[in-house]
Formats: sequence, structure tokens, C-alpha cells
Amino acid sequence: VSTSFADRLAGLVEERRSQVCLGLDPDPSASSRDAGGDAGGEDAAERAALAVAESCAELIERAGAACVAAKLQLACFERLGAPGWAALGRVAAAAREAGLVVIADGKRGDVPVTAAAYAQALVGETPTPWGPVAGLDADAFTANPLLGEDALEPLVAAAAEAGAGIFVLVRTSNPGAGDLLDLDAGGAPLHERIARLVAERAERLRGERGLSGMGAVVGATEPRYLERLRELMPEAILLVPGVGAQGGRASDLGPAFGDHPASVLVAASRSIASAEDPEAAAEALRAEAWSVGSG
Amino acid sequence: VSTSFADRLAGLVEERRSQVCLGLDPDPSASSRDAGGDAGGEDAAERAALAVAESCAELIERAGAACVAAKLQLACFERLGAPGWAALGRVAAAAREAGLVVIADGKRGDVPVTAAAYAQALVGETPTPWGPVAGLDADAFTANPLLGEDALEPLVAAAAEAGAGIFVLVRTSNPGAGDLLDLDAGGAPLHERIARLVAERAERLRGERGLSGMGAVVGATEPRYLERLRELMPEAILLVPGVGAQGGRASDLGPAFGDHPASVLVAASRSIASAEDPEAAAEALRAEAWSVGSG
Repeated sequence: VSTSFADRLAGLVEERRSQVCLGLDPDPSASSRDAGGDAGGEDAAERAALAVAESCAELIERAGAACVAAKLQLACFERLGAPGWAALGRVAAAAREAGLVVIADGKRGDVPVTAAAYAQALVGETPTPWGPVAGLDADAFTANPLLGEDALEPLVAAAAEAGAGIFVLVRTSNPGAGDLLDLDAGGAPLHERIARLVAERAERLRGERGLSGMGAVVGATEPRYLERLRELMPEAILLVPGVGAQGGRASDLGPAFGDHPASVLVAASRSIASAEDPEAAAEALRAEAWSVGSG
Repeated sequence: VSTSFADRLAGLVEERRSQVCLGLDPDPSASSRDAGGDAGGEDAAERAALAVAESCAELIERAGAACVAAKLQLACFERLGAPGWAALGRVAAAAREAGLVVIADGKRGDVPVTAAAYAQALVGETPTPWGPVAGLDADAFTANPLLGEDALEPLVAAAAEAGAGIFVLVRTSNPGAGDLLDLDAGGAPLHERIARLVAERAERLRGERGLSGMGAVVGATEPRYLERLRELMPEAILLVPGVGAQGGRASDLGPAFGDHPASVLVAASRSIASAEDPEAAAEALRAEAWSVGSG
């Protein structure tokens, strides 16, 4: 990859006038029995994985033009085993073909030697005596910082080498997110401590337009934190879930934006995927977020 | 599964007089080019996955009798894509066949709807129109608590339903573990706050011998925390990494033990896998841990 994630995203956001990240959390129980027919056999995992890949590809086709990124929820593929993991690769390829950046949402985090293995899986490759095995080749991925700085390091190093981005969990959008992340940790909420870890590494993944691919996940459900977190992470691209089905509103996201419209990615899953007209839902979110982010 | 994880493990520990958990973190770059030959073709991922499964099976065969559990490092399989995920299932089956409980070490943690999908992948099944797709059928798994109580809940519920156990990251063994986990969080270190979350759920996964499958990961590298963490989690099974290659010593683990010898699992990966004689290395660790745990 010749350019950084931050610059690739910035170009795409300017071109499409969109900050929408299409969340792909496929649920095979919602498939019709007629889907996945090409799998031929009766193996449930193979059929379900094919149906899931088809439904994601269809959603990308319908709603992708209003979006700049696709966020693939790894859990939803893993639960279908090896066929699910193969489907993950096919969905990533379909998203790439639609011009979207691919965000692998697995929230991985582990001790350094294992974190390096996760980085190989997501944005790198694994050397073997039979040649390198390519990973998912994601443009960016989400990461859990609980294990500390040395556990984050192999992820940052791998992202820098691959021209990829990282979204570190800083303040998630679920109702219980504050149980630990809002605890007072030596004079500041824990989520602010994590934001500092992100900001300290901004240079490592910095592009040429004032944005850094050393980013953060910050939920839309508690907009009161946005201004302070933007202040702490002035260059970070913020991946913001929680708009729509979880109750967050795009109109509240003003304080999340930095100097560039690509400083925020608004992630929406159910509110687009379950809409009667996913294209219209994505376009409506695009227009609303764009007016907030360039306001 | 008719009995709880805690009772299954307790029976096995008594029978084998062992608390050793064999860590399987296979590195395909360490394989010989002649391994994985049965894969036939020249596909690197298929060959590497087969070699990895073979090397794990061989290690289980050589060292398994001195152990009670196998801890499968998911990252090391995921980096080989779909063939790696298939190998994971085969290694889990080999471990089960050797009488070991299978611990899926993926340190997953996500918002509730996604946490439920991870639980399906690890200890449950996923409903599809073509019938249920079985998950990995692990006996227990590791979990990251950063996202709070509602994110932990689907994992606990799924474990209770499956008769499985959970090891929540409380104080890991890497050098940077204290960066966040040792921060003072409202009057107590963050790792103690997490220990309380574990203890509050002990009843949900409690067996009949005073042990709970609502367990915790507590590194051997900082033994000064062990006594306090055992006090906070009196019934929890503690999964203790860091002995051997990371510098922790089995002889320091006395304070980690509760009332039952199965209250501690000593996890060792490199110190067994890389030993000239893995069987002897596992047996030596077994004998040392047993003498500490029944002393």
C-alpha cells in the first residue's frame, strides 16, 4: 500500500462526501432457506456462510455508494467456523470492489507475541515454509487496549508497515460501557487515559492531511464525552457506533469532528441493514452526517 | 454436558494429580517443509494449517498425560485463514481425545449482541435455516471485561447453558499489564474492580465442590497480587500464565490456591513446547505445581 490509511480515507470521504461506515453483522437465522443454494450440499455451515456472504454483498451493492467504509463484525463470521472465515474474505473483497475501506471489527487484544499473530491475521501475512499466507488484508481494525502499551505495540507496528489504521476502544456505545471505562483512574476517567495512549501514537500512523490512522472507537450514545475526547486526540479518526438503533443521533456528533471531514466515521449496522430501503437509509445518514461534519 | 466445567475439571485434577494447562500457540514458520505433506497441493495456507494441527497433536501426545487442559491460542490459527480455523477444530478434538479440557484463548469481548455471537462460536451453536451450526465446543474460554457488565452477561449466560467456564482477564502476565490494570480506580486497582465482577457471578457457574467456572486470568509474573485476588475471588478457578519462559515460578503460586487443588491451572506454552523433552518438562511442572497446590 503506497499511502497511509488516513490519506486513503480522507480522499474517499472528500470524493463521496460521506462519512458513513456500513456495519456488516450478518445473522444467518434471518436468511431464507432458498439462499446459499449454490453451495449444493446440505452442510449447514457451508450453506449459511454462502447465504451470509450473499446478503452482505447485496447490502454493499444497495447501500455502498453512500458509504466510504464497511465494518465487518468478525464474531458473526467466526460462528460459522471455517466456511464463515472464508466468507469473511469474500465479503472483504466485495467491499473493496465497491470502493470501500475494510474495517475488521474483532476488538482483539493480547500479550505481545499473540498480538503480533493477530496483526498477521488482519493486516499482514504469516511466513511458512511453503511461502507466506496472506491475512485478511483489512484497511483498519479495532483493538482492545486493556493489556497495556506493550500489547498495543505490535498492532501499531504492523499497521504502520501495512499502511493500515487502528481503532482503539476508548468509550464504547453499549449501556454498560461506563462500568470500567468511566471509572476515575488516578484523576481522570479510564477512557481519557486510553485516549492519551492513542494520542501519543498519532505520529506513527499520521497521513499528510492532519489526520492519523491511530484512531479510536467512541460511541455516539454519550455525546457529552465527545468534545473532551476530540481535545485529547486532535488528529485521530474516530469510529463512532451507536447512531440509529442504539439511540445515538448524528446531529449530536458536531464536537467529535476535527479539522477534516474524515475525522469521524459514523458506523451504522441495523439502521441500514434492516431498513426497508437500505440505499435510502444510508443516503439519509450520509446527508445528515455530512451537514454536521462540514457545518 | 451434564456436569459443570468446575466439577469436570476438579475430577480430572484429582485423577491426574495435575494442574498443568498445555498452551498451544503453534508457529507455522517453525515447521519443516516436509510437514503437512498430506495436504497434497501447494496451497501454503492448507499445508501450514495441516502442519500446525500435526505439531499440536504430537505435542498433546507427548506431553498431554501430565496435563489436564489444553489452551488453544486462537490468533495462531486465525492467521492461517479458513484452513487455520478448520485446524483449530481438529486440535480441539485431539485434545479432547487425550482427556484434556479445551480452553479457547481468544480474549473476546464486545457489545452484548456481538458477545452473544462469540459465545455461539466458542461454546454454543448458531441457528440457521439449514439447521444449527456447531461452534468450537470448548470447555472454557478467556474473555476481556473492558466493555462492562452487560457485555459480559451473554458470555456468562452461554457458559452456564453449555456447562462451560470463563476466564476473565484480571491481571495478565505481560510486562505492560499494569499500565491500565494497576491504575487506581476509585480506591482500588482496576484489576481488583474486575475481580469483584468475577466474584459477583461465581454462583452462576458454581459446581458442587466449592469451585466456580467463573474464573480469572492472573499472571504468575506478579505474585504479590495473588493473595489479594484469591481473597476477592474465593471460588474462582484461576488460569495462571507466565510460568517458565515469562519468568514466573510455580513455587510462588501458593497464595493463588483456594480450598481445592483445581482452583489453579498453571498454563505453560513455550517452556513445554520448546523443551527438548516436552513430556519431561510437563511432568516436572506437574510435580512442582502439585506439591505447591497440596502443600
